[in-house]
Amino acid sequence: MKHLKDMDLPRDLRQLSDEELVILCDEIRDILVTTISRTGGHLASNLGIVELTVALERIFDFSRDRIIWDVGHQSYVHKLLTGRADDFDTLRQFGGLSGFPKRNESEYDWFDTGHASNSISALFGMAEARDLNGEDYHTVAVIGDGALTGGLALEGLNDLGASRTNALVILNDNGMSIEASKGGLAMHLTKLRTSRRYTELKNSLKKVENIPVIGSRMYERLEKTRDSLKYTVVGGIFFEEMGFKYFGPFNGHDLRSLTESLRIAKDVEGPVLVHVITKKGKGYRNAESEPGRFHGTGPFDPETGRCEKKEGVKTYSEIFGDKMLEILDGNRNTAAISAAMTNATGLAAAKKAYPERVFDVGIAEGHGVSFAAGLALSGIHPFVAIYSTFLQRAYDQILMDVCMQDLPVSFCIDRAGVVGADGETHHGIFDISYLSHMPNMTVMAPRDGEELRQMMDMALTIDSPCAIRYPRGENGDIDMPREPLDNGAEILKEGENVFIWAVGSMVKHALEASSMLEKEGINCGVGNVRFARPLDLITILDTAERYDLIVTCEDNVLNRGVGEETVAEIKYAGIDCDVLCIAWPNKFIEHGTCAQLFEKYGMDASCIAERIREKLEEKA
Amino acid sequence: MKHLKDMDLPRDLRQLSDEELVILCDEIRDILVTTISRTGGHLASNLGIVELTVALERIFDFSRDRIIWDVGHQSYVHKLLTGRADDFDTLRQFGGLSGFPKRNESEYDWFDTGHASNSISALFGMAEARDLNGEDYHTVAVIGDGALTGGLALEGLNDLGASRTNALVILNDNGMSIEASKGGLAMHLTKLRTSRRYTELKNSLKKVENIPVIGSRMYERLEKTRDSLKYTVVGGIFFEEMGFKYFGPFNGHDLRSLTESLRIAKDVEGPVLVHVITKKGKGYRNAESEPGRFHGTGPFDPETGRCEKKEGVKTYSEIFGDKMLEILDGNRNTAAISAAMTNATGLAAAKKAYPERVFDVGIAEGHGVSFAAGLALSGIHPFVAIYSTFLQRAYDQILMDVCMQDLPVSFCIDRAGVVGADGETHHGIFDISYLSHMPNMTVMAPRDGEELRQMMDMALTIDSPCAIRYPRGENGDIDMPREPLDNGAEILKEGENVFIWAVGSMVKHALEASSMLEKEGINCGVGNVRFARPLDLITILDTAERYDLIVTCEDNVLNRGVGEETVAEIKYAGIDCDVLCIAWPNKFIEHGTCAQLFEKYGMDASCIAERIREKLEEKA
Repeated sequence: MKHLKDMDLPRDLRQLSDEELVILCDEIRDILVTTISRTGGHLASNLGIVELTVALERIFDFSRDRIIWDVGHQSYVHKLLTGRADDFDTLRQFGGLSGFPKRNESEYDWFDTGHASNSISALFGMAEARDLNGEDYHTVAVIGDGALTGGLALEGLNDLGASRTNALVILNDNGMSIEASKGGLAMHLTKLRTSRRYTELKNSLKKVENIPVIGSRMYERLEKTRDSLKYTVVGGIFFEEMGFKYFGPFNGHDLRSLTESLRIAKDVEGPVLVHVITKKGKGYRNAESEPGRFHGTGPFDPETGRCEKKEGVKTYSEIFGDKMLEILDGNRNTAAISAAMTNATGLAAAKKAYPERVFDVGIAEGHGVSFAAGLALSGIHPFVAIYSTFLQRAYDQILMDVCMQDLPVSFCIDRAGVVGADGETHHGIFDISYLSHMPNMTVMAPRDGEELRQMMDMALTIDSPCAIRYPRGENGDIDMPREPLDNGAEILKEGENVFIWAVGSMVKHALEASSMLEKEGINCGVGNVRFARPLDLITILDTAERYDLIVTCEDNVLNRGVGEETVAEIKYAGIDCDVLCIAWPNKFIEHGTCAQLFEKYGMDASCIAERIREKLEEKA
Repeated sequence: MKHLKDMDLPRDLRQLSDEELVILCDEIRDILVTTISRTGGHLASNLGIVELTVALERIFDFSRDRIIWDVGHQSYVHKLLTGRADDFDTLRQFGGLSGFPKRNESEYDWFDTGHASNSISALFGMAEARDLNGEDYHTVAVIGDGALTGGLALEGLNDLGASRTNALVILNDNGMSIEASKGGLAMHLTKLRTSRRYTELKNSLKKVENIPVIGSRMYERLEKTRDSLKYTVVGGIFFEEMGFKYFGPFNGHDLRSLTESLRIAKDVEGPVLVHVITKKGKGYRNAESEPGRFHGTGPFDPETGRCEKKEGVKTYSEIFGDKMLEILDGNRNTAAISAAMTNATGLAAAKKAYPERVFDVGIAEGHGVSFAAGLALSGIHPFVAIYSTFLQRAYDQILMDVCMQDLPVSFCIDRAGVVGADGETHHGIFDISYLSHMPNMTVMAPRDGEELRQMMDMALTIDSPCAIRYPRGENGDIDMPREPLDNGAEILKEGENVFIWAVGSMVKHALEASSMLEKEGINCGVGNVRFARPLDLITILDTAERYDLIVTCEDNVLNRGVGEETVAEIKYAGIDCDVLCIAWPNKFIEHGTCAQLFEKYGMDASCIAERIREKLEEKA
């Protein structure tokens, strides 16, 4: 048998015997562990979905059949099996393969995903379009049980379920998203997973495997099982009531029965849901025992599973978590909320200390925000810790439930700015734009960890909505005096001719740029905006009066950001000074290290220095 | 028995006998029909909920117990019963009672609503806060079956259902939202409604009513029913599987059994769902036969039910609908999508002609947009017709599924700008701000109906996301020459010194203002922005070069709108001219007629003229 890299995939897959496919699965797992130990990435979910992906590519032809990977971080095996094995070591590297499905990367990728829960809606759209166009390809969505708690997925189930459209939903049920799945639906799935039915079905299918069956007989068998299940609690009633034909649960690591089930489900009319039970981290001991840790991992030692430990400096998430614990300690009327990311947002210790006041609402950001509004209206001050890009999903709830009612809800927005290897669906470069037109909202951005702490203290005293945005990772405290936060924007150093107003993590880059320019005799002042909204116009316009060139730097898109507003305010005020706005261009930014992206888009210290130099030359 | 206006409500309610309450319900219906026939408003849903509201106010004390009315347009009866009967004829009038719950209006209103599906999340938050604070009030949410298809409601059910928190969800099931409810869940509810169980239960409860029962016996009876239902398809399995104790369905117009059921459900531990079946429009013949027409109505003749017919000019919704039909006629690869608003958005005729290409996705805007992305990726060009304020709920899907993949989806955004009597949750004054930082997005605004048609033709040719925003109602075609849309921004008239750039419906006001000023010898040029994004900078900056004062007018908040960007661009370009931006202030705008609101906030023609006059004086 050839090695994976020497095969013509996915075509060759269909020539392999079951035994050969089992060997192939082992090889895929080896490649996953070896590669991701170097590149970092989503290991556990991909290890869990090896057999399911192999079975899918065997039964369907995704050069014409359409597949949507919900969230998409579990698409590595699909990439390996669809002509991308040779490039696999470029995974998540600048210019290399993305960690998510990308239509511009392969004709086998049909829908670019990254955020959870949209796959069923898109699947339904594709299936309807196929029927309208009189085409006949199959449409498949693979969604995890975690993503299924997102309201969007339930909207999709509800609408697709009521149709007669042929479309296949695969529920990849591993009992967790990044953390354990949440809510009533999760309890329902647990019942399905642990039911005697599942065990019986596993056994009966194993028997079936040993004799050659024609599809239709197998189908009858499954149909019968389905019907007998229908009137018991353990039979996927939820899905049946939604209008789906429900098959399962199946053992997601038994390639033969999976293949057989999919072969049958493929030709069933109407919306079908196949429930597959998988183990996150399957086949790699370290990931099996710590699936959460290996959900998304940096590079690690494949032998021990250990990551290089970074010394010293705490990340913003850790600083947030420590401070949150302190706030919960000191204020009985406070709470913290995360959306399926208690650990990742830094709330693990707080959750342990105050389980009744640290809420994990699951992948349901909109719900989390309306829930926070309910708390805030009833005397509990909530801190909502959600990544910038995922908070987008709660836009209307922030605006209508929190801002319209002017409630004291504090948003702690992690991963603001670019995040690196996860790429365009994960960068948090729109939050200033989408928050700063919301009435009653205050938006802050700390220059460093110490300032994040101060801003959280201030948030507690603001009787209105506020948001604090901070980037992934850390940047170490900036060793300069601190003006009281109440003062508004903070001038860190005065200069001549040029003044740079930087937002949050850009302060560090601005200071570096000013040091570079100083050596050339260009003496820039530097300020820390601190309040992206409302802008401290007194301080900012005062610098505009005193300097010839005002430069703004922000880790947000240019459009509708702090720079645009600053320029407009300078113009309204009729102040005659030049302006230069540095921000991400108004496009989606690809993956790469943050350093690579900052350099490419002219956002790092030397680029800032260069752009100021150019602007001054242009003026002269 | 006293009349409603003479009672001390809700206290007196608890003194009335069942018979007297039935009379009260009749009086309430009279007041509803009489008042709304004059003020306009949401009639059918309030007629449907009279007995349920009376029963709720009888059992609970909403001066301390908390009630959340999902959507909120069904809260009129609650208003009548909580001290607002005297002011009820000011309903939806400028300065008068709101058509929605408002905390600043009454201590009996606990949560300001307007958008669907958030009540269960907020309920859960309030209930958790109560427990954390060691308080003991009851928490109740009333949600319709339409709103229940919104993903947010399902997220709330999922999370609350898994908790042990005491909280009561009342499902007000009338089989429709504005139109018939959609999806698998609706089918499930239909099964519940039409089941023999329901009939039996109705009968058995009727029997029970005739003998005095102590709560606990009644509870046992219901518990037993509940358990026996649990294992049949018709027993609210959906809710039981979500973790709720399910009671019902109950006849929502039988006051005695409703009261009894609520009395019991009030003291059940954990999350409880009471399923009540009501008839939209109940008790008023015209509304019973046409509940959709009387969902939200203008003033009408209470005898005939007929509205004054407006002559002549078509509304934007009608123009959109006609043009959409024409597009569907001529292009087999097009489709239209609405979210529970096929009629209101103008799509009724199109739906009739092309049922397979006009999709109603229910109250599920996020799903509708991801569904559109699926269509667009598979060769069908979708037009998504959603009101500006409701499209906010799909922010992330527009950004990630449509814009990131740069798909040809055309958003037809009705009710952009202020809408009048529905007030702050319904005004569409944020869309330019939330759309125009989205990469790849084009945002257009027509000056009149004819231009809307042209923009829809153009949308069909744009191979990228685009949006067309237009206001509620009509403004008649502007009888001036039309430059080809391809040219970008359009100069309607040149002037001296002052040039007004107006967006969409503001063009008319700008032209009027310019006529007013002309009489005083101030000769303004007027232009039609047409493309709110990307701005036609060549044309706009050219006027900035040629005029002393550039004025922008837009029916959007000032913050992050067209004005702010225009000013920034003028500043970037280093052009020395004055600027004045006219837009809604960055706050939530109350209800009133559009004319009242335009006047109050300085947006109508005379205000525009006055502000220009002031600016010129200031300059001089």
